[in-house]
This record gives sequence, C-alpha cells and structure tokens, in this order.
Amino acid sequence: MPNETVTNVNLAIELEVNMFALIMAGGSGSRLWPRSRKNQPKQLLDLGSGRTMFQEAYDRVVPLFGNEGIFVVTSGEYVPMMRQQVPAIPAANYIIEPSGRGTAPCIGLAALYLQRLDPQGVMCVLTADHYIQKAELFRQVLQAAAQVAESGYLVTLGIAPSFPSTGFGYVQRGTSLGTVGGFEAFRVEKFTEKPDAETAQRFCESGMYSWNSGMFIWRVSVILREFEKLMPALYAQLMEIDAAIGTSEERIVLERVWPQVEKQTIDYGIMERAEDVAVIPVDIGWSDVGSWATLLDILPADGDGNVVTGQHLGVDTHGCLIYSPDRLVATVGVEGMIVVDTGDVLLVCPRKRAQDVRELVKRLQEEGREEYL
Amino acid sequence: MPNETVTNVNLAIELEVNMFALIMAGGSGSRLWPRSRKNQPKQLLDLGSGRTMFQEAYDRVVPLFGNEGIFVVTSGEYVPMMRQQVPAIPAANYIIEPSGRGTAPCIGLAALYLQRLDPQGVMCVLTADHYIQKAELFRQVLQAAAQVAESGYLVTLGIAPSFPSTGFGYVQRGTSLGTVGGFEAFRVEKFTEKPDAETAQRFCESGMYSWNSGMFIWRVSVILREFEKLMPALYAQLMEIDAAIGTSEERIVLERVWPQVEKQTIDYGIMERAEDVAVIPVDIGWSDVGSWATLLDILPADGDGNVVTGQHLGVDTHGCLIYSPDRLVATVGVEGMIVVDTGDVLLVCPRKRAQDVRELVKRLQEEGREEYL
Repeated sequence: MPNETVTNVNLAIELEVNMFALIMAGGSGSRLWPRSRKNQPKQLLDLGSGRTMFQEAYDRVVPLFGNEGIFVVTSGEYVPMMRQQVPAIPAANYIIEPSGRGTAPCIGLAALYLQRLDPQGVMCVLTADHYIQKAELFRQVLQAAAQVAESGYLVTLGIAPSFPSTGFGYVQRGTSLGTVGGFEAFRVEKFTEKPDAETAQRFCESGMYSWNSGMFIWRVSVILREFEKLMPALYAQLMEIDAAIGTSEERIVLERVWPQVEKQTIDYGIMERAEDVAVIPVDIGWSDVGSWATLLDILPADGDGNVVTGQHLGVDTHGCLIYSPDRLVATVGVEGMIVVDTGDVLLVCPRKRAQDVRELVKRLQEEGREEYL
Repeated sequence: MPNETVTNVNLAIELEVNMFALIMAGGSGSRLWPRSRKNQPKQLLDLGSGRTMFQEAYDRVVPLFGNEGIFVVTSGEYVPMMRQQVPAIPAANYIIEPSGRGTAPCIGLAALYLQRLDPQGVMCVLTADHYIQKAELFRQVLQAAAQVAESGYLVTLGIAPSFPSTGFGYVQRGTSLGTVGGFEAFRVEKFTEKPDAETAQRFCESGMYSWNSGMFIWRVSVILREFEKLMPALYAQLMEIDAAIGTSEERIVLERVWPQVEKQTIDYGIMERAEDVAVIPVDIGWSDVGSWATLLDILPADGDGNVVTGQHLGVDTHGCLIYSPDRLVATVGVEGMIVVDTGDVLLVCPRKRAQDVRELVKRLQEEGREEYL
C-alpha cells in the first residue's frame, strides 16, 4: 500500500533523477465512431466529463512532472488542437510521428529527444485514451515505479483485473523485488496476449496476473539499450534519425526513414523478450475507454441508469448511452442501447455490440466514404 | 367473390343512385410521432410510398367517384396542404370541422351537406389513414355495398382478421342477406369493442367475425334518420347548423354549436345500437397504419428485412424501420428497431413498443413542449 502520509512533493524530492512524462496520443479510436473521426481522434474529445481525454491525461500528471516535464508524441495534424486544449505544454515538447508505426517506433523516437535532455532520466510512457479514476494514487505509483526503473528495470503498471477480460493482455508476477513507496514490485514471469475465456478465468482466479496497462516506466538509456539489443533494425533507423536531430536535415531524414520502419508494438518488440522486466500491480481505477460500452460504465448515469449528453425523453428506457447535443432523443422501451448523434451521422448499437462499431468504420473505409471517416 | 369480368364503369352504370365518397381526414396520428405533428398529421405524410396517405386515399377512389364526387371532412388548418396535395378535388367539397368531436358528429355534419346534393344518395365514409393494398377490389366492394345500402342498410366493410388482434373492434356476422356483385352481405349480429386476447382468439377461430374497418356505406337520408332516432341531442344540434347552411350565419352558428357537441364515435353512437346493420366481409389488403410497426409490415423491405428511407449503413441489422432523410444512420447488431430522425427529433423504439410512442407525445404535452408536438 502507498504511504498516504507522504506528499507528492516529498516523494518527488526523494527521487534523484529527472522524470519525464511521455503521453502517447497518436491513435484514432475507431470504436468511438462517429464521435472519433480521422481529424478528431478519441483523445481530443470530451466524452462526457467536461474535459477532453488529452486534457485529463495532462491534469493527472502535471502535479508530478510540471509543464516542462510533459512530452507528447502524436501525429502532426493533431498538434494544433492539442496546443489549443492544453496551452501550458511547451510547443517544443511535441514529438511528431510522420505516421503511426506502432508503439515501439513511437517510444524509440521519443527516447531520442529525451536522451538529449538526460539519458539517465526516467521516462513514464503514458496514454491519453485511458480513464484513471484515482489520479493521486496513480502519481504515487509512478514515483514508486521510477525508483524501480532507476535500478535498470523496465517497469510496467499492472492493473488489478476487475473481470476475466479476453480483450486485454495479462502480466504474470514472478518473485517479489520488494516494496517501494508502499508499492510492491515483482519480476515479470510472463506476458500473455489476449487469452481465451477459459484462460482469462484461470488467470483471474490465480491472483498472479494483472492486466497489461500499456504504461511503462524506464530510464531513457535502458530502453535505448533494449532497442539496440532486441530490435536492431529499428535501432539503426533511430540512430539515423538521431544523427540528424538538431540539424537542418532533421525533418527530411525523419520523413525518409519513417515509412521504412516496421510496425511493431513495444509489447511484442521489447517487453515479452527483455530480461529485467518488473510489474507493479495497482488498482488506480483504470479503464480502457475502448468503446461506447466502457463509457456507459465510467460516466455518471441518471436515475434510470442512462448516461445522457443532450436532451433525452425516455419512457421505460434504462442503461442507455445517449449522446445528442443538438437534437431531442426520444426512446420507448429501450434497454442497453447506444445512441450517438453527431449531426451528420447517427449511430444505434446495443452495448453488447459496441466493439463492432469498428466494423462500420471498416465498411466506410472500403466504400471510400471519406466524409464519414 | 367479386365478378372480375365486370369493369368499374359497368358496375357504376348499374347503380341507380348518386355515390359520394367522404374521406375523413381530421386525425393527427400521435403514434407516428415524430413524423406526425400537430401541423402535419399522419394523413398528409408520405410514409414511404411516394404519395401521401391522403393522396393514396384519393387515388383509390377517384376512378369510382370522380373528383366532384369526393368530399373531405377535416380540420380547417389542414385544408391548404390538402388542396396542394390533391388540387383536383373542388374547394367546395371540403367540409370543415371546427374541432374534432369524434366520428359521429363528423359524419353527421358531412351528411347535412350531402343531403343538399341528394338525400337519397349513398355516402361511403372512408378514411385517409389506412392502407389498402387491393384498390380495384376495394372499389368493387364499395359498389356492392352501395347496392346493399340502397335497401336502407347501414353497411360496414368487415376486414378478414389476419391475426387475433386486441387492437381492433370486431363485427359478428348474422344471417346472410345474399350476394351482390359477387360479395356476400350479412346482417350484423353484434359489434364488440377491442376484446381481450382470449376472446380475440375465439373470434378468429370461429370464422364468424371481421375487424371493424371504420368504413361505412349508407344512404344520406338513412344515417340522418338514425341520428334523429339514436342520438337526438346531436341531431338537434345538426339541425340548428343545417338551418344556417347557405346563409351568412353558417360559420357563426357552426362555431357556436360545435363546442357543445358531445364527443362520440359512430360505432358507439349508431352502429352498435341500430337495427338494420349489414357487413360485407372482404379481404382488400387493409392495414391500419396505426404505428411505425405497421409501416414495417406494409412497406417494401430490403434484403435484410429493413425498411429504409434515407441512407443506412447496417452490420447485422434486420427487421428495422429507418427513416432519416438527412443523416446517415449506422447500426450494428440491431433487430426490429424503429429509428426515425426528423431533423429536430430522433426516435428510437423497438417495434414491439411502437404503440407506446403516444406515451412520448403525452409526456411532451404534459411538459408543454409545443416545439415537438
């Protein structure tokens, strides 16, 4: 358990390294279509809290890292909106991916820039498209993780599974590495990709597994060494880019090299094969805001269990998510339905089919209906 | 069975009386909200066929009655739209009810005007909010009914029940009155209001019951005599109006008398209590377009059983009614759902709850939200 009497400031002072937050914010989030669009990805939307997901990601970490310590890696087209949403992050802290190549190249690129600030610094790789209820506890565990990372570990935050999900990867705990700042860290025994239902059930019952949160904490120098060792082709490409950083060729080299970079996730590319990997299991009230169904779980509901943005007139209507800022939505006898009206498109989908919203996006892509993408 | 070799024209020549069609078109149709509104009632809407229900009612009867023989009783506010939709009906053939007082006063008022044209004429009381698939057969049965009406009967068309509905009234056949123009007429044994499910089942199995179509055929003089006998108070009020017809006082008297008229249906007021009532059972492909669910049954569906107006992108979507002329409607995993988008309002309702759309209208009325009524 975290030491509740110790404040953030004290903990931060205890750390002897620079800490950087790296917010990865390049995805699009097709399962939140029609609100998420090519030019308006999930993380730039206010999904009901009054703040966009990117703003919430910033709010969560700024007390710990300060504006100067927050870096964002994203697609160039999103930067103007992000700058508007969070003007406090310095413009120089935006790292632009020419295109999405998966989390491994994304993190590698960011590491090059952070290395110039402090190769011994600890980078916390965070996401802008997850919901975290317990922000204070989250900051505390990041500080604890940074201390574990100082000794050379690749640290991942492990989420206490709330149900035997088949939609997440799982991290199996090995031997204890001891307790830091009230949190116990473990050597990772094994990463397992999205398991089948039976395996997921077994994992949850064993008590030895956490969900893979996709949030990682490590020294910049350590992750770069891992790239060199485990992903040498990517490392060579990164070095080519690195040589051009700060020169007039920087952008040209990046634009030339990047399309040749192999798409890969950090989980497959590094985490599953690295040696010194640690996990800190923690219950920070984390949710993958992966679909409209998750939003139904997270956002405050009215007396009928409906999550409503806009005007709703319901008779016998329960457990629905209604998003319709401009139009009255009237429902009779509707249960567990998602109704999203964006002005040009109207989505109707039962919550249990929320994952399949991406099928609609796929169909629109196949049909070349750009106006809806 | 009707004599298919006899054409309409020949049949019409056989009749020795004037025939008038009286299209009752004063209702609003709250179960088709949000398309039906106070200022745009059901009968003035094109619900998917390309013609409005009023236009279809006209199309069905004009071959038999001609433009001059078609009369419309409705609310004054609807007349401009009706004149626009069917310019061929003479303006003088519109009979205005100052307010809706039920079908008995409505028919009584119309009878006053038709009496001046020919008291011995036969008036066919028809509706503008029903769908009739077999228009040719419908015209034939009207002609047969007119011949039965000539002998003084109040004739009703009995619809062959397609299922044991608890939503319609039933007409029980008595002794046969013989066959006219290929149709057998029966003395009515009894009218029964909307029965419970068990009774409806028994009615359907007996083969002796028809649905009460709400369409009636009688001589003008005969129905007025019935009003005098069975609804004397209404008859006195009608006579007061009658005395003013054609004078400068006509409108003033109508506006004064009408609000005092008791609301009553022709079924309760006359049909259930009159002596010489006949029914002609017929299968004209009749549907009460009472709700969105009926439209799903009537309108042509696509390969997935969806009735679509506008643009629809569906994955695993079946048996839905989608009306959205301006917006793309995208659905995943939706079955038997009604989705109606009118620009200002969006309705979502499972087909089995289609009757309860009026609950929404009631709620809007209670809340005084005129903009949606």
